Amino acid sequence: MTDYYPVDALESPRFEGVPTFMRLPMERDAGKIDVAILGIPFDSGTSYRPGARFGPREIRVQSALIRPYNPVLNVDPFRKHKIADYGDVSVNPLSMEDTINRITNEIANILRQGCLPISVGGDHSISYPILKAIAEKYSAVGLLHFDSHSDTLDKYFGVKYSHGTPFRRAIEEGLLIPDKCYQVGIRGQVYSRSDFDFTMEKGLKLITMKELSKMNVDDFKKTIKPLAGVNTYLSFDIDFVDPAFAPGTGTPQVGGANSFFTVELLQSLKGLKIVGADLVEVSPPYDSGSITSLLAANLLYEILCILP
Amino acid sequence: MTDYYPVDALESPRFEGVPTFMRLPMERDAGKIDVAILGIPFDSGTSYRPGARFGPREIRVQSALIRPYNPVLNVDPFRKHKIADYGDVSVNPLSMEDTINRITNEIANILRQGCLPISVGGDHSISYPILKAIAEKYSAVGLLHFDSHSDTLDKYFGVKYSHGTPFRRAIEEGLLIPDKCYQVGIRGQVYSRSDFDFTMEKGLKLITMKELSKMNVDDFKKTIKPLAGVNTYLSFDIDFVDPAFAPGTGTPQVGGANSFFTVELLQSLKGLKIVGADLVEVSPPYDSGSITSLLAANLLYEILCILP
Amino acid sequence: MTDYYPVDALESPRFEGVPTFMRLPMERDAGKIDVAILGIPFDSGTSYRPGARFGPREIRVQSALIRPYNPVLNVDPFRKHKIADYGDVSVNPLSMEDTINRITNEIANILRQGCLPISVGGDHSISYPILKAIAEKYSAVGLLHFDSHSDTLDKYFGVKYSHGTPFRRAIEEGLLIPDKCYQVGIRGQVYSRSDFDFTMEKGLKLITMKELSKMNVDDFKKTIKPLAGVNTYLSFDIDFVDPAFAPGTGTPQVGGANSFFTVELLQSLKGLKIVGADLVEVSPPYDSGSITSLLAANLLYEILCILP
Amino acid sequence: MTDYYPVDALESPRFEGVPTFMRLPMERDAGKIDVAILGIPFDSGTSYRPGARFGPREIRVQSALIRPYNPVLNVDPFRKHKIADYGDVSVNPLSMEDTINRITNEIANILRQGCLPISVGGDHSISYPILKAIAEKYSAVGLLHFDSHSDTLDKYFGVKYSHGTPFRRAIEEGLLIPDKCYQVGIRGQVYSRSDFDFTMEKGLKLITMKELSKMNVDDFKKTIKPLAGVNTYLSFDIDFVDPAFAPGTGTPQVGGANSFFTVELLQSLKGLKIVGADLVEVSPPYDSGSITSLLAANLLYEILCILP
Amino acid sequence: MTDYYPVDALESPRFEGVPTFMRLPMERDAGKIDVAILGIPFDSGTSYRPGARFGPREIRVQSALIRPYNPVLNVDPFRKHKIADYGDVSVNPLSMEDTINRITNEIANILRQGCLPISVGGDHSISYPILKAIAEKYSAVGLLHFDSHSDTLDKYFGVKYSHGTPFRRAIEEGLLIPDKCYQVGIRGQVYSRSDFDFTMEKGLKLITMKELSKMNVDDFKKTIKPLAGVNTYLSFDIDFVDPAFAPGTGTPQVGGANSFFTVELLQSLKGLKIVGADLVEVSPPYDSGSITSLLAANLLYEILCILP
Amino acid sequence: MTDYYPVDALESPRFEGVPTFMRLPMERDAGKIDVAILGIPFDSGTSYRPGARFGPREIRVQSALIRPYNPVLNVDPFRKHKIADYGDVSVNPLSMEDTINRITNEIANILRQGCLPISVGGDHSISYPILKAIAEKYSAVGLLHFDSHSDTLDKYFGVKYSHGTPFRRAIEEGLLIPDKCYQVGIRGQVYSRSDFDFTMEKGLKLITMKELSKMNVDDFKKTIKPLAGVNTYLSFDIDFVDPAFAPGTGTPQVGGANSFFTVELLQSLKGLKIVGADLVEVSPPYDSGSITSLLAANLLYEILCILP
Repeated sequence: MTDYYPVDALESPRFEGVPTFMRLPMERDAGKIDVAILGIPFDSGTSYRPGARFGPREIRVQSALIRPYNPVLNVDPFRKHKIADYGDVSVNPLSMEDTINRITNEIANILRQGCLPISVGGDHSISYPILKAIAEKYSAVGLLHFDSHSDTLDKYFGVKYSHGTPFRRAIEEGLLIPDKCYQVGIRGQVYSRSDFDFTMEKGLKLITMKELSKMNVDDFKKTIKPLAGVNTYLSFDIDFVDPAFAPGTGTPQVGGANSFFTVELLQSLKGLKIVGADLVEVSPPYDSGSITSLLAANLLYEILCILP
Repeated sequence: MTDYYPVDALESPRFEGVPTFMRLPMERDAGKIDVAILGIPFDSGTSYRPGARFGPREIRVQSALIRPYNPVLNVDPFRKHKIADYGDVSVNPLSMEDTINRITNEIANILRQGCLPISVGGDHSISYPILKAIAEKYSAVGLLHFDSHSDTLDKYFGVKYSHGTPFRRAIEEGLLIPDKCYQVGIRGQVYSRSDFDFTMEKGLKLITMKELSKMNVDDFKKTIKPLAGVNTYLSFDIDFVDPAFAPGTGTPQVGGANSFFTVELLQSLKGLKIVGADLVEVSPPYDSGSITSLLAANLLYEILCILP
Repeated sequence: MTDYYPVDALESPRFEGVPTFMRLPMERDAGKIDVAILGIPFDSGTSYRPGARFGPREIRVQSALIRPYNPVLNVDPFRKHKIADYGDVSVNPLSMEDTINRITNEIANILRQGCLPISVGGDHSISYPILKAIAEKYSAVGLLHFDSHSDTLDKYFGVKYSHGTPFRRAIEEGLLIPDKCYQVGIRGQVYSRSDFDFTMEKGLKLITMKELSKMNVDDFKKTIKPLAGVNTYLSFDIDFVDPAFAPGTGTPQVGGANSFFTVELLQSLKGLKIVGADLVEVSPPYDSGSITSLLAANLLYEILCILP
Repeated sequence: MTDYYPVDALESPRFEGVPTFMRLPMERDAGKIDVAILGIPFDSGTSYRPGARFGPREIRVQSALIRPYNPVLNVDPFRKHKIADYGDVSVNPLSMEDTINRITNEIANILRQGCLPISVGGDHSISYPILKAIAEKYSAVGLLHFDSHSDTLDKYFGVKYSHGTPFRRAIEEGLLIPDKCYQVGIRGQVYSRSDFDFTMEKGLKLITMKELSKMNVDDFKKTIKPLAGVNTYLSFDIDFVDPAFAPGTGTPQVGGANSFFTVELLQSLKGLKIVGADLVEVSPPYDSGSITSLLAANLLYEILCILP
Repeated sequence: MTDYYPVDALESPRFEGVPTFMRLPMERDAGKIDVAILGIPFDSGTSYRPGARFGPREIRVQSALIRPYNPVLNVDPFRKHKIADYGDVSVNPLSMEDTINRITNEIANILRQGCLPISVGGDHSISYPILKAIAEKYSAVGLLHFDSHSDTLDKYFGVKYSHGTPFRRAIEEGLLIPDKCYQVGIRGQVYSRSDFDFTMEKGLKLITMKELSKMNVDDFKKTIKPLAGVNTYLSFDIDFVDPAFAPGTGTPQVGGANSFFTVELLQSLKGLKIVGADLVEVSPPYDSGSITSLLAANLLYEILCILP
Repeated sequence: MTDYYPVDALESPRFEGVPTFMRLPMERDAGKIDVAILGIPFDSGTSYRPGARFGPREIRVQSALIRPYNPVLNVDPFRKHKIADYGDVSVNPLSMEDTINRITNEIANILRQGCLPISVGGDHSISYPILKAIAEKYSAVGLLHFDSHSDTLDKYFGVKYSHGTPFRRAIEEGLLIPDKCYQVGIRGQVYSRSDFDFTMEKGLKLITMKELSKMNVDDFKKTIKPLAGVNTYLSFDIDFVDPAFAPGTGTPQVGGANSFFTVELLQSLKGLKIVGADLVEVSPPYDSGSITSLLAANLLYEILCILP
């Protein structure tokens, strides 16, 4: 049996011990594991409500409720892969530039050792430095991006790096293959009609919430079929989900998906060539009864279950 | 460009400044604007949980997240109309009678200057004095009423004016055209079978939640087609929405709509001849993480987008 | 008219008086009533987040909002049956064994007098001692069990009685007819694939959430048709519902039903031969804005409406 | 032994049963008891944050923690007097006038039967109708009034009856002996210097918080010595206490007493000729962790311990 | 009478209208007023829990409860000075450098017009750029600094500007007169004994909480007597107060002052030559029942009352 | 330098990483350290509000704010002793008996290796099994017990082991030296006058809150002087502190100490021969803004500072 397995909740109660992701062992040596779940507690790229810096900590706490076996996908990811809690990237809350470098370096180090990084934010600005490391290893990759916002703005307050701009930067720098980028769940008001210019010009694929609401899971799978065989990065912003299900986030947008459909969508990704993933924008100070962190822990688990 | 435009959140962060509705300028001269968003912070007509007096304040705060352009309806309401935050009607929390007069006078004054009033409650008792002013200008109008309760009781505790009785009073006084009144989303227990006597006798149209749950947006549009061309007042009680999406309200009723469908329903009203609207019963002390006020701000925005 | 009728909220405001279930009179003499709603404030069988001991108290408080007449089922249960608040079973928070005896005795006493018990938990461990009393009167019965978990584990921490084991014990002791047991809404991860061995071996019927999500109410009715005419116990764990609608529970599971569908499912049970029911696992310390307790009060009401 | 004694928490856990004040029996026949604890859930006289209508309910809930014996005063009030939960005065949330009459009548009825009323508000407007009944029986009485505000304004919004005016009305109508009125704990800003004109003109005694902060309990006892032998009404507004200890109130004022000193002050009243008392302005929707209601329950208990 | 006076709460209820500081008029022209209360919603200098960016907004909301007349100091500051809500400094949440410039410029502009600035943070990093503007006008000034931390660290994460370093920077740059700097209420653990080296070397005056706890107000006044006649800047960090009284802050420290003593201390400052003031580190997402913001509003009011 | 030192918050932000007590390293080998801080997440001995099982986890989280150096006592405990986070005792939430054994064994094991155990509850029932291990090593010891309750009841619901009985059991079994037992802060109502019989008979020393309120720290030190040189166990129930400062506890009692005095009392214990300590009854689900856990973390730190 693997050395990296969650503590058994039938023997040791869930409220016991120091909270790691899914009660897994800590392991800082990426060479020993297949998948590293790591925290990136950085929210200094936030334009509205901060607090995502506490995301990794609270998602760890709520993940104590996760059990190991997935009866829908018929898999126990902790037996299939060696998975551990890698700890956090050490960030600098007072410097975006310094933090970008730290994140890129840490992810690059994980990748170098053949380990797949699953990053827990933190705000969405962390995706850009992660993608820099990903592209360093794989060159440009595809993107499957669940979010209510497309995060392809040019600048906020005159600044180029923030949680509203990561995918524009990534595309500008050639880290992503534009026509292999799918943005799913986009909805709500925008600043002006020209907000979509970049997306259309570059050829990103938009699946708005309105469109998604008319799809079932099979329709969705068909729509993203072009990702088959493509190295794909998965980025999940919790505000994809409706605020009733995920109130604890920085820029909530009404009219989102419910938790059942969200889980089904993630399960449908089985078979994709995921090379890395993140789950971002969980902001515990704005949560109600920790339901957002609990949902995030479940989504993380589902991501583990669909890894190649 | 219009003088009445929301502060740009890409230049000035959303948490900055005194909170007005959607970060619009204040304007007390109705003659200068097309649409007045105004608060009516009155909840002394409440039978159970008070607190809706704080609705306008908190909806203003949460509306900081609204961006100007609606990609679904392809409209920027702030460019189409001159819209401003008109401030509040000055109410008397210790006197229903005094408050009824104050509301009717203020709304009449707004209407007189060719300005369309969008009122933010407060409890549902405010709809009756608003309708008095509306009917004064337009004579009897149609009604599109989203709510879990029909609010057509005769009395509460022997009193004629309260948040359970506005539409009975309005119909008795000829302010509404009974067979052009649509009540949408009605559900939950009632006091007795005879609660519907008034509705049926007068010929109001009831679309219960059970019926609505089987409709798509096109079905709904067909159902309310008789309102086409009719001067129509729109009254939206937040408890139309399920308590999971809108917990912050005085008399919540389970089994309501979700936020996605609610937004779609409002968007489908484009083309109606709306002559005034209110959004009522948001009670911030009972909210969780301000999701109710945030939803209310979004619904207000959608109402702005469908104005003629 | 019956002596057992809720206080009239049009005369006496809902926030007035000592909170009993649905503002019904208290009645400890089961011989005088048809249906006893009783609290069983026991949560010492909880493996994770305790607090369900406060369930009966808070559900009583929130049930003040229930009105008597059900327009969907066209029934006023308080006129059809003599229903009262029976008070609580006196439990021993420091002893599972003692409490099991107390519950079985109290329920047996209620049943002996021809009264139908509706129990409000408390955690799910209370179903086992209730079923002992039920089977004593009716011999083995059918089970309709709404839950995200099947609660058929063998042991927790080496202990046989807990909120994860009641139905295994009940089947082992012949209190239930295995192939007349329906478990509805099961979802989420489990400990291992073998978790379902007992269920399959014994022939329990599983309707997972995934399956249920593809059913409408008529499909559901067809599926549970074999229960027609069978003495059936109804056990409703609030975590059947999604955490967005019912956050206040001990072991929440994402991906559950919404409140509208849940109410419809309960309404569809009309015609079943219900011999007893419980509603369990409402944990007020983890609730947000009391929406879980409010939903629970509504579900209790719907159960009253479908009693034979 | 008395029939009116709290349920024993060593036998029946505190979270069990329908919550009455201090787990006492209900008794609506004032003739059978010496002291009636009753709720007056009325807050329609509130100028700022409503919610005190839920005070009686939540104070009942929190009073489950009270044990019977007072080791400081060496008394068990439940053995010394027959004390019961009388239930609530039925109020009319939509009419101040109607409610004033109902309160005066109910209190008069209690007094007529030789029973002492301890009223739990509700907002401070209830003291005026109570004093009408008190003065009817005793003619003008002395007043011991703990509060941060003197509540002797003339009008709010042009209205004479509200939570800011009860003692002015009572003095104007001769219900109180002005120079036997002590207002304790007064602090914070006022509208203007003339706010104290009425107080000074009438000769009420003011013990401001600043003065009180320099006193110990003996100093305080000396200061109120003129009340000895005088029929005295005790009115306790929870905002006497600092918001850190009592956040759940409608118009909190910083700089108040702590809970230890407050309890000591109440204990020092032993020997006064109390003829009635109220505890008002607990507003549960604004409480944190129910500490205000818990404190209120303790203060009620201390009042019971000092009754003649 | 002045044009700058709070709305009268006896005529217009406190929950009405757009919330400005103390319900004062807005006035962006500093030349027209004596005192400008302004918000500086910047918290990107925070090392632990962010959220102080929402301080100005929530303190505005809670300040609705402030009445104009101070009976202790016998002053109505709104009659003595022309005071208005100046609005906020426009900050850049993504850039400390940019924000420092913006703050210094805005404060300089206010001072230039003979207006005294009272700034509401935001985190403590805002004091440094304010002091730059202050020193530009007055050259080096004295400091009266209430806080649990001395905020004289050299760097955080290698960065010079943050909420832990403002007074070190200010002293290094000659903005403050070191031996006229009083730091009051310092307590709790520090990083190492050398944390006090800078303070001692420079000759700052430390009044630890332990020392303060043994003082009464007169002792305190004597201690800070050397400030008499000196241009003095007042900086008040809300964590000076104990977390029970002010939980809503970023780095709370137990063992602080209560609200009564804090108010007394501020009142004792009457007579000092205050040339500017700030109140910082109120973080609404961490508040309980808004008591921190309410206290902050009261402290702001007391500061207004002691201005020369 | 020691291997056991908190992570430096000036280099690695406080919100980073898996939360251990005071950001110390984990160390399960007691032989390597001088002091073990360990969690005992057991609350099945609770009579009223459970939740203390989450105490160790949340106190770990809040302890991230602790800095290493104590300027009052002039000590850095992490340099003086080798201190680590030992992890938790594995408890059985479904069995008191089993848990008692597990605790006694784990503590005995720690003691055997010359390591001093500081236990973080959990409810107060854990003190009894700890004392069994302590007495095994040291034979009977003295007790310094801060609490609002004396916890010397005989039984709850007929059961001998619970959070109300540990010190009676310990005295009956000779684990404590009765006249070297000091119970400090006792207050509030009790069940009857005979509750103190055991205490008086056995000669325990009671310092009630009323007495303590008249003492300064020097008086207190004098009072407990007989403990000098005696092996002493320190047990700190968080409800010693007032609910305003520590709302998150199971059976709060008003009229307690504030945080400043509490810290001073602990600091005054320097010089005692402490052989073990616990801090119990922190119940996070009932906390407001985590102030109770934050205070508990500070009290733990102060205990570390006074160890011999």
